[in-house]
Amino acid sequence: MEYPDRVKAVTFDVFGTVVDWRSSIARELNLLADEKEISIDGAEFASAWRSLYQPSMSKVRSGELPYERLDVLHRRNLDRVLEQYGIDQLSEPEKVHLNQAWHRLDPWPDVVQGLVRLKERYIIGTLSNGNVSLIVNMAKHSGLPWDVVLGAEIAGQYKPCAEVYLRSAEILDLEPGQCMLVAAHNADLLAASECGFRTAFVARPAEYGLDQTTDLSADHEFDVIATDFVDLARQLQA
Amino acid sequence: MEYPDRVKAVTFDVFGTVVDWRSSIARELNLLADEKEISIDGAEFASAWRSLYQPSMSKVRSGELPYERLDVLHRRNLDRVLEQYGIDQLSEPEKVHLNQAWHRLDPWPDVVQGLVRLKERYIIGTLSNGNVSLIVNMAKHSGLPWDVVLGAEIAGQYKPCAEVYLRSAEILDLEPGQCMLVAAHNADLLAASECGFRTAFVARPAEYGLDQTTDLSADHEFDVIATDFVDLARQLQA
Repeated sequence: MEYPDRVKAVTFDVFGTVVDWRSSIARELNLLADEKEISIDGAEFASAWRSLYQPSMSKVRSGELPYERLDVLHRRNLDRVLEQYGIDQLSEPEKVHLNQAWHRLDPWPDVVQGLVRLKERYIIGTLSNGNVSLIVNMAKHSGLPWDVVLGAEIAGQYKPCAEVYLRSAEILDLEPGQCMLVAAHNADLLAASECGFRTAFVARPAEYGLDQTTDLSADHEFDVIATDFVDLARQLQA
Repeated sequence: MEYPDRVKAVTFDVFGTVVDWRSSIARELNLLADEKEISIDGAEFASAWRSLYQPSMSKVRSGELPYERLDVLHRRNLDRVLEQYGIDQLSEPEKVHLNQAWHRLDPWPDVVQGLVRLKERYIIGTLSNGNVSLIVNMAKHSGLPWDVVLGAEIAGQYKPCAEVYLRSAEILDLEPGQCMLVAAHNADLLAASECGFRTAFVARPAEYGLDQTTDLSADHEFDVIATDFVDLARQLQA
């Protein structure tokens, strides 16, 4: 294999690929609902909140809105979902705390072991739409041993816009071909590939719950297709 | 003490404070000089190279030149010092490798132990004039467990300009008063303090060699004065 010798940095999509956002958000919502005696299904609320994620970024991508960090978009989307659900029992500090649940997401069980191995051989970094403080707080929460936090906030734009991948490579002083993106999402990998990145697909078939229909497998010829991060480390000879 | 409870991030100046640039650069130069049969004093050359550091950044600070990463300034300065010394025996790849010596600096002996302790309680990050790839490569070289790499390249400006400190706090979503700068240099700490940062002085009396006359002690009332990073961790209750 030529690519492991040339790749210097392995970068990661985070939401869905590294962390199980849906279960983590659902758990916090269910706890809050119990405490406030509100009747909601945490997992359903989590999906509703997440469904506003792509639309909120698309206005930034199109130039209709200037870049704002994901925490700000998450909060705007939270307020909309709370209104949709008719929930008006939360104080402002409770809403702030709930919005910060995205900083407390748990990783999939294979993640830490795989990252520790990959870190021995490669620079490992995040290439996420999450803002820097979100990613740093999440890493502290879950022991994710990143060497560097890159992605949307550093580029002032959201994936899959090309500048997010290209700026991340540039700031590492690497050519795109010396960088790999790891993601559970075909569209993200395809965009990275078009920028010259190497690509690794890791399926996360329960990201959206048991009835997930998208991204169950790789739809393109990516450089690596791995079952989880430990398998990824093995395939990348780390 | 009030401040340890309020401080969330401990940020670090790097050259001189975390790493012993002079000994590391001198060692690489002496090895190269032996190999190429050039007669130079590595430590003297290192000091000459470093003496162009502040002047090269001041043109960026004044707006005379746009921001360029420190690797670029280092290279321009290296070419000047090589010319001053009349050294014309180095190939382009050898000059590139020598310029990258700044990515391979060794830490002072107390650093890793202190950082590991501080990381348990605080976000630890770099707030250096070094560019991101330099800091990331140095961390890989020496096992420096940073949570996040901030500073000049993220701000597009050099310390001690206020925006470097303020942008670093902003990107962590913290108020300046929730951040501390650790440095061996009074001027850096004073600038950070004027931005609202907490400050910790750690003397590095051999940074410039045995006849160093500046920054031997704290000239101002900083929040912490520590003998080394282990003492700093102790004083910050980490």
